[in-house]
Amino acid sequence: MTEFEVIQRYFTNRQLLQCGVDLSIGDDCALFSPRAGTQLAISSDMLVEGRHFFSDANARMLGHKSLAVNLSDLAAMGAEPRAFTLALALPEVQPVWLRDFSDGLFELADHYHCQLIGGDTTKGPLNICITVFGEVPNGQALRRDTAREGDDIWVSGTLGDARLALASYLTTDANQHSDLCTMSEIQKQQAALHLHMPSPRIALGMALRGVARAAIDVSDGLIGDLNHILERSKSGATVWCDALPFGATLSHQNVSVQREFALAGGDDYELCFTASKDQRNVVLAAAKQAATQVTRIGYIESEKGLRLRDANNLPVNLSIHSFDHFYEPGN
Amino acid sequence: MTEFEVIQRYFTNRQLLQCGVDLSIGDDCALFSPRAGTQLAISSDMLVEGRHFFSDANARMLGHKSLAVNLSDLAAMGAEPRAFTLALALPEVQPVWLRDFSDGLFELADHYHCQLIGGDTTKGPLNICITVFGEVPNGQALRRDTAREGDDIWVSGTLGDARLALASYLTTDANQHSDLCTMSEIQKQQAALHLHMPSPRIALGMALRGVARAAIDVSDGLIGDLNHILERSKSGATVWCDALPFGATLSHQNVSVQREFALAGGDDYELCFTASKDQRNVVLAAAKQAATQVTRIGYIESEKGLRLRDANNLPVNLSIHSFDHFYEPGN
Repeated sequence: MTEFEVIQRYFTNRQLLQCGVDLSIGDDCALFSPRAGTQLAISSDMLVEGRHFFSDANARMLGHKSLAVNLSDLAAMGAEPRAFTLALALPEVQPVWLRDFSDGLFELADHYHCQLIGGDTTKGPLNICITVFGEVPNGQALRRDTAREGDDIWVSGTLGDARLALASYLTTDANQHSDLCTMSEIQKQQAALHLHMPSPRIALGMALRGVARAAIDVSDGLIGDLNHILERSKSGATVWCDALPFGATLSHQNVSVQREFALAGGDDYELCFTASKDQRNVVLAAAKQAATQVTRIGYIESEKGLRLRDANNLPVNLSIHSFDHFYEPGN
Repeated sequence: MTEFEVIQRYFTNRQLLQCGVDLSIGDDCALFSPRAGTQLAISSDMLVEGRHFFSDANARMLGHKSLAVNLSDLAAMGAEPRAFTLALALPEVQPVWLRDFSDGLFELADHYHCQLIGGDTTKGPLNICITVFGEVPNGQALRRDTAREGDDIWVSGTLGDARLALASYLTTDANQHSDLCTMSEIQKQQAALHLHMPSPRIALGMALRGVARAAIDVSDGLIGDLNHILERSKSGATVWCDALPFGATLSHQNVSVQREFALAGGDDYELCFTASKDQRNVVLAAAKQAATQVTRIGYIESEKGLRLRDANNLPVNLSIHSFDHFYEPGN
């Protein structure tokens, strides 16, 4: 199968033409016109075999996740998905893999009326690079640099189940976390869904326009990602460890595992956002409208740094770091 | 060095903020507003080590070429470059390589006032994925599906020197092309510049708005790329082999090598375009304005297929195929 046959068979004419897409796959460029009065939100994510997913990853779930992690960035800006490009390096052309991958990809894309408008296909070590385009009304994007002293800190959904799923695959984790409880098969499957099939919080992000002050998506672990808000907003925060919404499966683990996986797990794809204290009811109404659980987990303060406290308001000290792609233990 | 230090040191705050870029690197998404009355032209290209460049490729030239091949797609649409994202998988953090790569990248980006607005950095086999954004006035984009019977076919610059440079690196080529003449060191260096430092034909593409009918950039070889115009435009063509603008270095080779490398070489990054016969003087004026040589090489006809003829109008039969990433000799 040639490069053009791969594109033709698996990636062309599989979606309804969306408004704003003036020219799609098949030319040197796609042509896209954002709606009047909107800004285009743009984000790129690259997924690498062995780094972001296992080499035996289910292709359909991988197609879903590749787009989901990008849509999560749009959600964090309050943007509405419109279109995306896909660049794909494949070691070889495997029809079954391509069928499953594209099925998973388009199922999610169609759900959000997000159209594949172009990309590239080449031979090489498996690599999936997606760039997404969303629209947000002028001036209403949720940014990282806009948190203010006194803001509540909120997080959507639950945290840590994706990290727990990863632990069930990694033998090194069982050594590092001696207090990790054995998981039942059902627990493993439940946790695995969080890792492999994340739901981008698009509806919540859009509902939070004009309500939230700052926002970010939690992809590298809550502490690391919240720290990006704090750095960009030149502020600090206190987070209540016992207020964190632990994942359903994680809640069966010991408190030390719960805290570590919820605070520094990664792959959650929830939204962490701040909002003025007097907006609590408005936040809850927005969450209800988006059918998404939100939990208040702390507050922004002027003193720099991030402080963790337990239910008795006592400091909690955890030696954890957020995920970094170039981090090597011992360096 | 962490992922964030890599981004901070080599890819942030190296350019003037361009108009239309409302938010750049450092948030979940970039925010971009195309100018009123324009469509956004979008293209993605992925470059893989060992496939698109050698593992010992000069990093500065690689930075240039990675962006140049993307800008070439904008040129083929008549679009003006505005912004780009860069997703980069690196086997390891090598400061010298990153400095040189980013220097080459930004030198070209600055020349075209094209701003890096976001991306991703991760560990993995070397892979460079760039998505570019350009603007083109509504309805003026140069497309592939608009060639008409009787149109002249034109090509910019010269063809085949990049392919000749590749031949000087590949020992297999010396066997396959027994009539390949030995090249002097100076010839090798001249040809190598075409391979490693292509000049995207942005000025020509913009000057051809409203002048050219159909256009494509020649990246996989003239025949293969012209065929995309023919297929999308449901037409055929005759090309005069002896009218092809052979590269300065290629012109020292035998005619069979000249023809093959010019017709099916790849990596030329010239524009192939069609225009009405009565626009010849307008095409030449546009080319002069863009300070770019253009050559008339054939014409569009209704009979499907691509026919090659020599200076005596006799048919030329060449067994050549355009570059395909999944092509394996013998399959």
